[in-house]
Amino acid sequence: MRITKATANLEAYTPGEQPKSKSVIKLNTNENPYPPSPKCAKVLKDFDLDKLRRYPDPVFMALREAIASINGAKVENVFVGNGSDEILTLAARAFVENDEMIASLDPSYSLYKTLAAIRDVKWVGSSVESAKIDIPDNASLFLWTNPNAPTGGFTSPKKISAFAKKFKGVVIVDEAYGDFAKENCMKLAIAPKNNNIIVMRTFSKSYSLAGLRVGYCVGPKDLIEALYKIKDSYNVDAIAQAVALAAIKDRAYHAKTVKKVVQTREAFVTELKKLGWDVLPSEANFVFARPKGMAAADLFDALRKRNIFVRYFPGPLTGDRLRITIGTLDEMYKLLLTLKKLKA
Amino acid sequence: MRITKATANLEAYTPGEQPKSKSVIKLNTNENPYPPSPKCAKVLKDFDLDKLRRYPDPVFMALREAIASINGAKVENVFVGNGSDEILTLAARAFVENDEMIASLDPSYSLYKTLAAIRDVKWVGSSVESAKIDIPDNASLFLWTNPNAPTGGFTSPKKISAFAKKFKGVVIVDEAYGDFAKENCMKLAIAPKNNNIIVMRTFSKSYSLAGLRVGYCVGPKDLIEALYKIKDSYNVDAIAQAVALAAIKDRAYHAKTVKKVVQTREAFVTELKKLGWDVLPSEANFVFARPKGMAAADLFDALRKRNIFVRYFPGPLTGDRLRITIGTLDEMYKLLLTLKKLKA
Repeated sequence: MRITKATANLEAYTPGEQPKSKSVIKLNTNENPYPPSPKCAKVLKDFDLDKLRRYPDPVFMALREAIASINGAKVENVFVGNGSDEILTLAARAFVENDEMIASLDPSYSLYKTLAAIRDVKWVGSSVESAKIDIPDNASLFLWTNPNAPTGGFTSPKKISAFAKKFKGVVIVDEAYGDFAKENCMKLAIAPKNNNIIVMRTFSKSYSLAGLRVGYCVGPKDLIEALYKIKDSYNVDAIAQAVALAAIKDRAYHAKTVKKVVQTREAFVTELKKLGWDVLPSEANFVFARPKGMAAADLFDALRKRNIFVRYFPGPLTGDRLRITIGTLDEMYKLLLTLKKLKA
Repeated sequence: MRITKATANLEAYTPGEQPKSKSVIKLNTNENPYPPSPKCAKVLKDFDLDKLRRYPDPVFMALREAIASINGAKVENVFVGNGSDEILTLAARAFVENDEMIASLDPSYSLYKTLAAIRDVKWVGSSVESAKIDIPDNASLFLWTNPNAPTGGFTSPKKISAFAKKFKGVVIVDEAYGDFAKENCMKLAIAPKNNNIIVMRTFSKSYSLAGLRVGYCVGPKDLIEALYKIKDSYNVDAIAQAVALAAIKDRAYHAKTVKKVVQTREAFVTELKKLGWDVLPSEANFVFARPKGMAAADLFDALRKRNIFVRYFPGPLTGDRLRITIGTLDEMYKLLLTLKKLKA
């Protein structure tokens, strides 16, 4: 047997579909409908190709300084990954022994379960995000998506802080959608007495850079150092470092884009409710909602046939709803028209 | 204890120094002295920024097709990583159980030992690359750098094939420097009856794209599938996919660059020998050589003071030599002049 048992038995994670056609209204993987900052375009146009001959800065200092400055953190508290995915993979190695477990909310980002399987440890889900969380003693990493996906639900920093105080392991607050929420947990991550909370962000959503693969996290120095120790030597490429730096420095553009998405979300929720849908409160760039006139799975198929891609997660906790990414006003309008035609 | 024992005890890998000054003659990390193909510049200039809003192709199909075609392989036999480093990290998980070992030549790429430590398994080195290799029964992954680093030594495909037939685990032939050698092992990787040889290549050396982080490997379908199962969902970003594709398609430019490096190597070796150095035969883009008039460690320091960076690996197997990357003819000429002045 040349392949490890854990790998052989693994059920691979299925990312959302990436249709190639430009005519598709793509509301299935929570991407941003607006382009990245024009400052990023300038970086690409001006990039000195000869720089690529050499290895990139292995500790991405310029980008880290910008991230630290924007979040009120120190450079030593900042780590950058090849997407947040890489940070999660590293955390599973740095903070979880072979006989420990990874825990998360349930439902939540479905990758977490796969992540535990790849790490060859058990995963446990806490079924209700707002209620008391009952976690086994040997869980050493808790992944708390906030706002959560696919629900969009938000938990207050106060509640997460109280949970982390009781939790013996590391709590990663995955704020992939944090920029679309009213509040976030960064103040917990940078608090001097924090010893087990890491807040993770991504450039994939609010910065419109999913194609670039850059995520970062902020947390206690010893935990951040552990990630540096086990990462690949040059995990973030030179172009990604430069483009992400331009994006995060353009605060005005970022704020404007986020505001448009949030306003569209609020308008869309109002319209969905008018159609009789059950819409969970969302602080993210998507909504998780139960259609009125049609089963979620059927509506998913019907929309797909009409070139509108949303996300359907089968299963008892999620199978009666659809997760719909917030696109442009125009895209949401077209979706609403289609729903009316389908009497959904 | 929030950090795993293996991580806490880890001695991190130290990559070669990356000086920021442009006046340094940088011969320490085996980068290519010539720029990437001009076709890569065009890709960057023309890149549609709006594409970055969306996730990249998770299975990099266009790039894989080009890699497969150039190597006479099928697409199903090709995997691409965020640098070869990522492929090694994934292989350590896919092919090594917790109670197994990772083996390699010794001396070889010093990262391998760190890789085993990160994976929390033992590493064992085989001290003489040309002699009989004596490997413990529970070694399940053998990393064979060919040409080897830091020596530059080459082992014939025939010998590697014979070794792989007896080895019960997976053999990864790391051909990071393979394009500078007369021969390579790709024919072993694509042979229909091959069941345990993977050949790995990188865009960092012969393609002058170290800053981009793209490596690939070719091997048996079941082993390649295992890597896909455990990789991060989107491990190679959209720009890296596009630039690497342009680079690999420009065969003429690649051949020309490689030829220049090899010619410079041969000329440089001749001159070093004239100075009385002991130069190991090299099929790579560097040489590993023992100075005549000065200890390697002292010469390393003396060169560094004169803004010439080479690589020094302390230790009984490597400490009497320097590893010198092949730069431009002009750079090697300046180095030789400096050596003469230093009477080294």
